[in-house]
Amino acid sequence: MYLSKMLFKSLRQLPSDIELESHKIMLKSSMIHQAGSGIYSYLPTAWKSLKKIESIIRDEMDAIGGQELRMPVIQPKNIWSKSGRFQTMGDELFKLQDRRKKPFVLAPTHEEILTLIVKDIISSYKSLPQILYQIQTKLRDEPRPRGGLLRVREFVMKDAYSFDINQDELDQTYNKFSTAYNNIYEKCGLEVIRIEADSGAIGGKDSHEFVAISESGEDSVVLCNNCNYAANTEKAIFAKTEFTDETTNEKKEIPTPNIKTIPDLCKFLNIPDYKTIKSMFYETGNKFICVVIRGDYEVNDLKLARILGTTDFKPASQATLEKHNIPSGSASPINKNIYTIADDSLEKGNNFVAGANKENYHITNINLNIDFKADAVTDIAKFPEKAKCLKCNNDLYTKKAIEVGHIFKLGTIYSEKFNTKFLTESGARESMEMGCYGIGTGRLLAAIIEQSHDEKGPIFPKSISPYRIIITALNIDNFKVKAYSEEIYNLLKKSGFSTVLDDRNESAGVKFSDADLLGFPIRITISKKLEEEKLLEIKLRKNKDSITINKNKILDYLKTSED
Amino acid sequence: MYLSKMLFKSLRQLPSDIELESHKIMLKSSMIHQAGSGIYSYLPTAWKSLKKIESIIRDEMDAIGGQELRMPVIQPKNIWSKSGRFQTMGDELFKLQDRRKKPFVLAPTHEEILTLIVKDIISSYKSLPQILYQIQTKLRDEPRPRGGLLRVREFVMKDAYSFDINQDELDQTYNKFSTAYNNIYEKCGLEVIRIEADSGAIGGKDSHEFVAISESGEDSVVLCNNCNYAANTEKAIFAKTEFTDETTNEKKEIPTPNIKTIPDLCKFLNIPDYKTIKSMFYETGNKFICVVIRGDYEVNDLKLARILGTTDFKPASQATLEKHNIPSGSASPINKNIYTIADDSLEKGNNFVAGANKENYHITNINLNIDFKADAVTDIAKFPEKAKCLKCNNDLYTKKAIEVGHIFKLGTIYSEKFNTKFLTESGARESMEMGCYGIGTGRLLAAIIEQSHDEKGPIFPKSISPYRIIITALNIDNFKVKAYSEEIYNLLKKSGFSTVLDDRNESAGVKFSDADLLGFPIRITISKKLEEEKLLEIKLRKNKDSITINKNKILDYLKTSED
Repeated sequence: MYLSKMLFKSLRQLPSDIELESHKIMLKSSMIHQAGSGIYSYLPTAWKSLKKIESIIRDEMDAIGGQELRMPVIQPKNIWSKSGRFQTMGDELFKLQDRRKKPFVLAPTHEEILTLIVKDIISSYKSLPQILYQIQTKLRDEPRPRGGLLRVREFVMKDAYSFDINQDELDQTYNKFSTAYNNIYEKCGLEVIRIEADSGAIGGKDSHEFVAISESGEDSVVLCNNCNYAANTEKAIFAKTEFTDETTNEKKEIPTPNIKTIPDLCKFLNIPDYKTIKSMFYETGNKFICVVIRGDYEVNDLKLARILGTTDFKPASQATLEKHNIPSGSASPINKNIYTIADDSLEKGNNFVAGANKENYHITNINLNIDFKADAVTDIAKFPEKAKCLKCNNDLYTKKAIEVGHIFKLGTIYSEKFNTKFLTESGARESMEMGCYGIGTGRLLAAIIEQSHDEKGPIFPKSISPYRIIITALNIDNFKVKAYSEEIYNLLKKSGFSTVLDDRNESAGVKFSDADLLGFPIRITISKKLEEEKLLEIKLRKNKDSITINKNKILDYLKTSED
Repeated sequence: MYLSKMLFKSLRQLPSDIELESHKIMLKSSMIHQAGSGIYSYLPTAWKSLKKIESIIRDEMDAIGGQELRMPVIQPKNIWSKSGRFQTMGDELFKLQDRRKKPFVLAPTHEEILTLIVKDIISSYKSLPQILYQIQTKLRDEPRPRGGLLRVREFVMKDAYSFDINQDELDQTYNKFSTAYNNIYEKCGLEVIRIEADSGAIGGKDSHEFVAISESGEDSVVLCNNCNYAANTEKAIFAKTEFTDETTNEKKEIPTPNIKTIPDLCKFLNIPDYKTIKSMFYETGNKFICVVIRGDYEVNDLKLARILGTTDFKPASQATLEKHNIPSGSASPINKNIYTIADDSLEKGNNFVAGANKENYHITNINLNIDFKADAVTDIAKFPEKAKCLKCNNDLYTKKAIEVGHIFKLGTIYSEKFNTKFLTESGARESMEMGCYGIGTGRLLAAIIEQSHDEKGPIFPKSISPYRIIITALNIDNFKVKAYSEEIYNLLKKSGFSTVLDDRNESAGVKFSDADLLGFPIRITISKKLEEEKLLEIKLRKNKDSITINKNKILDYLKTSED
């Protein structure tokens, strides 16, 4: 490729509101071009990288027995209503009507339609497992697109789905995917860790994310500085501190005028927050629920949703509270017949102060299982700023990260909804155990650039670089230099090295800076002086120094180069 | 691949309303699965073929200097309003709003967005030509989806666009594409002819279609049985018969009571239709137009649209006719001051009978340029049932065909609308000359199956067959046969031949019929008897007979096989 003919321009001025390095680099080097909020074209260099990423993914999917297929972007609404995702996805789903006013959606993932396909084609345990995948354009109406390719509304994703005869087999398939994912990231030159994740609204069972640690990430992960524990902050478990005291004191109702919050209560009574109980009230459907947690922790809505089996809950209205005689600010589950969920931190302490269920009064020396009962005692706490690892008791810490892959055990959620069953060896009919597995290729590319760049541009790993080599020909207006450049260019092309020749009549400064901005692993410089001596200057993008070699040595050099 | 684990089932019963062989075959062999009207999933075998087709296309596009990129499916409406296609495409365009009620469209092709990208990146003649392409999902809300993959609403298309400095250079680029397209069809094993085509509503200049002759085609093409003239019926030109007579007679108004049509007029006056003039009246915007043609021809609306520069015209309303004093059934342009377009057939005859512009009267011996003038005299006639070639005067005939590619010279239509200019060598700023070039990959696959199948299923050309070989293992419950089958399967796989092993415990009848239905070029049969003698039976899908060879000869056989 001649650089003069490449769809490339180094953008000198960027919009001022761009924060992320990968976004800046990709715009500046014409890797991407914005068509709308969260909607980009991938221009030729980015697309070359993405095709290399796709090819790496394809190899790994095929290696675990994956069959590639292609399902439609536009899908009838009715199958989304049937799965329930038309409701749960809400505004994230793009919706439209055709010319006959029939309703459709644009698919962000393909569980529904594939479950229907498999139902029509696979009927016996003999044909299982099935691992099916596609690499395809997806649409999702993100509320706040940002960061170039990190959070977009149209994106290319590899989505895979597995169908197994039972949970053990699903576990095995799931583990194969996990290994395949690690191989993919390694081949792409990206450092990634696997963390425990929440499986979201429609959920399922186990779920893991693969994340690239990066300051520009939107995800927050919890890591242990000793053992290998790693989890999404939303999902993270941790050791709750123990604050049990031995004194047993009498319960006493005490006046707490105008005290409505835990901090005010602690100040007023001069007690630490871990000696208090925070009580909250929610409504879901026509159920009324009390949630209690120790005063030094906060409730994590996702953990709560998991216990409730729905994300469709909200704080109880004033009317509902009044109906149940709950005085807000002085409330608790004591002497109330309300379905109650307690965080297990209440088991790591005693003699708490809680609301007296009487306006402007609290009550002291309250204990779970003595003064009130909970219908469920479990972990519903947000990860606090500091905590110890539940596994090894060492310090946990948090990091920002970019999610670059997500795997789920779906179980039989979809196969039951769509009646996708198979005949077992003994002749019974059972629902298939499903898994789903996704990697966004554009976000993966952005994450690689976030992890591997300097102030001049990206430093592409060889495996995914759009081209391996750029020949920077200085003094190209000299006909001998021109001929020499083309001789080398043709030699490299013929030898199978993907190469760009910078044949533009530009200054050395512009040429070197564009070579850095393109980020290819190897730069070969040619100048009048080098031509005269039949030499080539070679610089690796990742190194500072260059070397000079005889032109006859170039193929040998490239064969062993560690670029 | 083991057939037992492939996402494959031979559908025994098809819906009764399926007409086309390719559609039947693709449904029956689980190549496709319908998600909605004109919306299909491509299952693993179809997708394998489509990826091979994509790869053939990519090679040819790269060979002419094409750069691959990827533009978005979802696009802001405003750029479509600017090009005018939001209006001209009408209901064919899928439209939607995002969560903030911003209007978007789903793109069927990408002229608008790419013209904008090129405008932002390319500024000099030094960077031209640019040839840019993508292979991508497109959406088009077809009014009547039909025929499986022949006319669908979601499809994968290779669309390419070229940008040149002038018309001569565009002509050269256009010719490169034309050659590349021929190479693509040849490599895919499809017989195709290039025909002249209409360039459609937004149009441009030259345009050609590549069509596969097939009874199941929706296109109709005109071919010469002597020279190489070939054109879409809508665009076809032909020699209009000469019917000039020497007699000169007086003009005479004659009563024609209740005669409103040409057939009635001919019958009443006992004259042939070529002695009459048919006059029609149209409205477009606020223009009123008269169109005249010899009575033995019909007006071709597409040819007329080309002269008018718009497809937005309709027959004049009764009110408009009355306003202009036009008595329908007895009308003509005589003595009327109306913008008139005449078909050139009126120059191939004389002394016509035409409407007298007086209710129930016609007038005899009317001649163009004597009794009325036309503002344009040109070819606007539909291709009749029979006609002679304008080039060589031999017989023309029509055939049904499937359009499998379309190339257009767009000229500067888009570059002017989007102000996409470049600096010429002399420092002027000029609009780029554009071309666009499309191949639908799914329709190409369907056309290949239409051209190459028998009653048992498809006969895939080797270059695009999902797999090259199927090993049909009979008596697979015999452990020696099983071991022998796997030995051969592993040998072929290791040697790089893409192979499916039919390892199912099915009857010979089912296995042979499924092998035919899958359509792979080579079937290798294994049975108890063949195993005992270490033989293999080989049958090519396209031939009737089989041969038996020693297993040690199999690799040699495959290396030289003409399957």
